[in-house]
Amino acid sequence: MKLVMQLWYYEDYEDGVKLGLAAKEVLFRDKSDFQTVDVIETESYGRMLLLDGLVMTTDKDEFVYHELISHVPALNHKKPERVVVIGGGDGGTVRELLKHPEIKEIVLCEIDGMVVEVCEKYFPEIAKGIRDPRVKLNIGDGIAYMEEHEANSLDLVIVDSTDPIGPGEGLFSGAFYKSVARALKSDGLMVCQSEGLWHPAPVLQRIHKNVSAGFAHVYPYIASIPTYPKGTWSWTMASKNAIDIKNFDKARLNKIEATGLKYMNEDLMTGVFALPNFFKAKLKS
Amino acid sequence: MKLVMQLWYYEDYEDGVKLGLAAKEVLFRDKSDFQTVDVIETESYGRMLLLDGLVMTTDKDEFVYHELISHVPALNHKKPERVVVIGGGDGGTVRELLKHPEIKEIVLCEIDGMVVEVCEKYFPEIAKGIRDPRVKLNIGDGIAYMEEHEANSLDLVIVDSTDPIGPGEGLFSGAFYKSVARALKSDGLMVCQSEGLWHPAPVLQRIHKNVSAGFAHVYPYIASIPTYPKGTWSWTMASKNAIDIKNFDKARLNKIEATGLKYMNEDLMTGVFALPNFFKAKLKS
Repeated sequence: MKLVMQLWYYEDYEDGVKLGLAAKEVLFRDKSDFQTVDVIETESYGRMLLLDGLVMTTDKDEFVYHELISHVPALNHKKPERVVVIGGGDGGTVRELLKHPEIKEIVLCEIDGMVVEVCEKYFPEIAKGIRDPRVKLNIGDGIAYMEEHEANSLDLVIVDSTDPIGPGEGLFSGAFYKSVARALKSDGLMVCQSEGLWHPAPVLQRIHKNVSAGFAHVYPYIASIPTYPKGTWSWTMASKNAIDIKNFDKARLNKIEATGLKYMNEDLMTGVFALPNFFKAKLKS
Repeated sequence: MKLVMQLWYYEDYEDGVKLGLAAKEVLFRDKSDFQTVDVIETESYGRMLLLDGLVMTTDKDEFVYHELISHVPALNHKKPERVVVIGGGDGGTVRELLKHPEIKEIVLCEIDGMVVEVCEKYFPEIAKGIRDPRVKLNIGDGIAYMEEHEANSLDLVIVDSTDPIGPGEGLFSGAFYKSVARALKSDGLMVCQSEGLWHPAPVLQRIHKNVSAGFAHVYPYIASIPTYPKGTWSWTMASKNAIDIKNFDKARLNKIEATGLKYMNEDLMTGVFALPNFFKAKLKS
């Protein structure tokens, strides 16, 4: 009889639900000034980044998150040139934004330098855009960065944060969204990750309420991510002036699709904004 | 120190991924002529039905599956009157179909009488439609039932099956879909459950190919179900003549929505047909 150690990673959701992933190897474990950082080689999803023990991204399904958080706002803006990404130290959001030739400058403002280092080493396909000449890497506090930013100067702000606990918490406050709105031009757009479709109502309501404190128009959207809690995630796009989500730039989408999008396409550019009744009710109540 | 037994149910997907649900109690365990039947009281999803150890339905998220498999075809048909449900012994599909006043007769053809008995006892809210006067319960083999059915006589056939292993296997064959097509009128529609968005390509391709053997027009669609593998499920609607999925009956949808739909609405009637590129590629390759 051969005795073989079997590693399993379990993410415990708070309501008695677990996601279990068979692991081959722990590639990296350390504690930065802000959080624990782990990289695990899994059987099914390739390499997986964990911050404070929670799944942040995996090789196999990262494309969903990164395509959704970047192309939806970029294609809903007429001419995005100046972009700030808050968080996003794995580089995936920057990689997707760089597919838009209109974008001249992306400031990547990540608080935790260890995340960038680890991702450049262990996730080269995700992090490959970080050293692009159009990208300015700024290791620092995103809240302070946005507060001090020149008003009325940005086209897109992408809040690619962790969950609203730990170092990401301040990125979910009404005050933060107000400072993002101040830094955006009048036709500028913000997108933040806004937790899962099946999350408890109070979590979703707080995010929705706080985004609405900074922006008059709020557009949540959803997509399927199997390694995130309950398998369906949400993002929230927000603007000062109303936008017509059916009127995105199809010609630019076609060019982007030719670069090999694995999730997004013309139907989904509006389809992701079609929300189940129970989710809409949770946001409102 | 108090020692408390903690029960966990784990569904092991084949690729080193597990779903874990904390359980309070096992309410029912038996083996029918066809499969094992279990009912577990879970912490997060209420009661859960398992067939051969796999999650079939739970109190908390059953509405997604049952709304999607019934209202999508019913509202894409001009006047559904005669309907057959193959499988579906929990009654949830029948409960949703009964919301359509146009439907005069539903034959519920379930192979396993134990499933019906257990669901009527432990899932009264799901099974409550089974004894409706418009429903004819037929405990028997769905394959034989469809083969022997009068040709050109049905408006809708809903294949509410288990997975393509065990007693449900034959419900995924090309021969079965051909006999369904034979029994449908020229404007009739079939819908079958067709496994998950993230399932391996060969499983999805086989279903897609076999449905296409019976029907000239095939319309897959998707929705979020957290207790099913990887959290996003698919169904496939099929017809002999092309249908325009944007041209569903909105007036009838509004009446149905007033009965309290938790998932479906006007936007999703087309939104569920917006499919990620990677899934479309899997179906085709």
